[in-house]
Amino acid sequence: MNSDLCRQLGIEFPLFAFSHCRDVVAAVSRAGGMGVFGAVMYTPEQLRTELEWIDANCDGKPYGVDLIVPTSIQKQGAEPSDADLLASVPQEHVDFANQVLDQYGVATDDLDAARGDLLMFSHNMNSAGAQDMLDVAFSFPIKLIANALGTPPPIMMERAKAAGVPVAALVGAKKHAELQVAAGVDILVAAGGEAGGHCGEISTMVLVPEVVSVAKGTPVLAAGGIVTGQQMAAAMAMGAAGAWCGSVWLTTAEGEPPQQIKDKMLAATSSDTVRSRSRTGKGSRQLKSAWTDAWEVKGPSPLPMPLQTLVSEPALRKVEKLAQSGHDGAAELSTYWVGQGVGLMNQATSTTAVVQDFKQGYLAAVERLMATLEE
Amino acid sequence: MNSDLCRQLGIEFPLFAFSHCRDVVAAVSRAGGMGVFGAVMYTPEQLRTELEWIDANCDGKPYGVDLIVPTSIQKQGAEPSDADLLASVPQEHVDFANQVLDQYGVATDDLDAARGDLLMFSHNMNSAGAQDMLDVAFSFPIKLIANALGTPPPIMMERAKAAGVPVAALVGAKKHAELQVAAGVDILVAAGGEAGGHCGEISTMVLVPEVVSVAKGTPVLAAGGIVTGQQMAAAMAMGAAGAWCGSVWLTTAEGEPPQQIKDKMLAATSSDTVRSRSRTGKGSRQLKSAWTDAWEVKGPSPLPMPLQTLVSEPALRKVEKLAQSGHDGAAELSTYWVGQGVGLMNQATSTTAVVQDFKQGYLAAVERLMATLEE
Repeated sequence: MNSDLCRQLGIEFPLFAFSHCRDVVAAVSRAGGMGVFGAVMYTPEQLRTELEWIDANCDGKPYGVDLIVPTSIQKQGAEPSDADLLASVPQEHVDFANQVLDQYGVATDDLDAARGDLLMFSHNMNSAGAQDMLDVAFSFPIKLIANALGTPPPIMMERAKAAGVPVAALVGAKKHAELQVAAGVDILVAAGGEAGGHCGEISTMVLVPEVVSVAKGTPVLAAGGIVTGQQMAAAMAMGAAGAWCGSVWLTTAEGEPPQQIKDKMLAATSSDTVRSRSRTGKGSRQLKSAWTDAWEVKGPSPLPMPLQTLVSEPALRKVEKLAQSGHDGAAELSTYWVGQGVGLMNQATSTTAVVQDFKQGYLAAVERLMATLEE
Repeated sequence: MNSDLCRQLGIEFPLFAFSHCRDVVAAVSRAGGMGVFGAVMYTPEQLRTELEWIDANCDGKPYGVDLIVPTSIQKQGAEPSDADLLASVPQEHVDFANQVLDQYGVATDDLDAARGDLLMFSHNMNSAGAQDMLDVAFSFPIKLIANALGTPPPIMMERAKAAGVPVAALVGAKKHAELQVAAGVDILVAAGGEAGGHCGEISTMVLVPEVVSVAKGTPVLAAGGIVTGQQMAAAMAMGAAGAWCGSVWLTTAEGEPPQQIKDKMLAATSSDTVRSRSRTGKGSRQLKSAWTDAWEVKGPSPLPMPLQTLVSEPALRKVEKLAQSGHDGAAELSTYWVGQGVGLMNQATSTTAVVQDFKQGYLAAVERLMATLEE
């Protein structure tokens, strides 16, 4: 594609694949887009292992890493200890989660023990943890580093600049884009309220032109609801330089969700997602399920990050395993982050085929518009 | 534009202006789009007066009418009387509305008397009323008739067919589009959750391709968040045949809202709207205000149509008048239906200038996309 961003990043087609799955990341990069590995739920050691695999399997094509690096990194020691964190999870929330699981026949006796395994999420978000993750990321020849939540702190900007790696940052509102541009980010990802995972309330159709209007020339990638090349062309008609997609890879052969979740997604309509604070404490879009229904209707008010994760994640990991092995109650409870675009994801496919479909869809959309200008 | 829909309707540019204001309707039609007069809050006599004016002022260009005709028209006499309707408004809701107004210094002693004036809204939605409105509409050379809510009943379809007038219908979900296509509508309006007024929860970016996928060739207009030609091109990249816009006309010189509301809209960001059931009983998007905040936070559960309108409308009409005359409390309460696109409506302008901007923006967007295909 004739695109400044493609030339800058050394890619053929400005389709960015956010994925927690190394196979998806490598396959998208090989196919001409750019895979971006979502590392927030990995330890630094796991991240190294995954990036080694990606580096060995991407045919030398560019790939990136997505982290959550807190805007203000505090001095080491200023953060709560693991024991403090675990102790500050309110019993009310644990009880509610257990009660919901009980109701669907899922035993809860081993969840407290599992809670400690989730601490890497909070480690990754504190100072020392974030620096460890940055160390690992920059030890690879990454071509993009993204911050999933908030303005990247100076340490992240400086390391990226020194390494010559562009920094991308996700924004859900125009005012956040203005802050990010002032902080010097190289690429803005405008994520509409229809996006899977963390998202705001402004739709992609409105947010993209709003963010472009304050980007001062910084390239804007459109995220939220985009699962086809026609939608990518739509975003680019509004001034985006490309598309940032997460959901569409989930139902591919390579996608990491278990088959039970893939089947739910393939059957879901666009009305089958909900933006809820019950998973992480911040609003994030996911499949509606008996779990999300219970929290929305009568759950206690969600806790701030990372505490809500320490409640929800042990429960949902257990549910996911049981659902996959045929447990009916768990199958009703199981959920997964996905955007409203799930309504358009109706066929099992492969990652490479998705990229090819995007290219064809994009071309068809542009040709369709060109035809409207004919005399 | 080279477009089947433009040829079918005899228009130059497939931009449809939904407006309660005859000046906007006529100006858009004169400028090459199609004005569609939103008649639901008018009596049949008022509708006749407005259509006479439009017909005399549109330079012979095509225009349309938008009604709410109930899907199942009942036999005359089967509907509640005016007295029954007024008597069935719960005191709890009236009390809550009065209490909110009291708190902002707005007197409420004349609201009960004003409630009866709102009955034309429910008249228009019952059998005899709907037929009266259809009689008036079809006595003019309209080129489009739209149903704002639900599937048009056979009587509407038959009269339109006999008159050779295409029928449009608004849909907020794919399954509704399937029903409308089966009912034989000629044009689908896919209205995303970011739209002003009644809307669903699926965003325009997702809903448009979903509706196109089941339209079986029926032209689809995209609605929701669209206030620029670039966004119109975006919708058409996804298969829409044009755009249906309501919000963008509100801040024009011709737009019907009082200046106090126009000023609020020009200052509003895309985060300053809320989808609430407190106005009509169904989810509709409007400016956030002290009124909508009060209902969202602690209001009684909204009533079914048309009862909630009989509570909200007398209050908000009074608020609107007082706000316009400088009453501070009323200025905080005042609200108006508008979509998230309000965040992109930042300059006072004219209706004709909006149409011209759309044409230029559309062209610029298509040229931008064409440039990406250059070698």
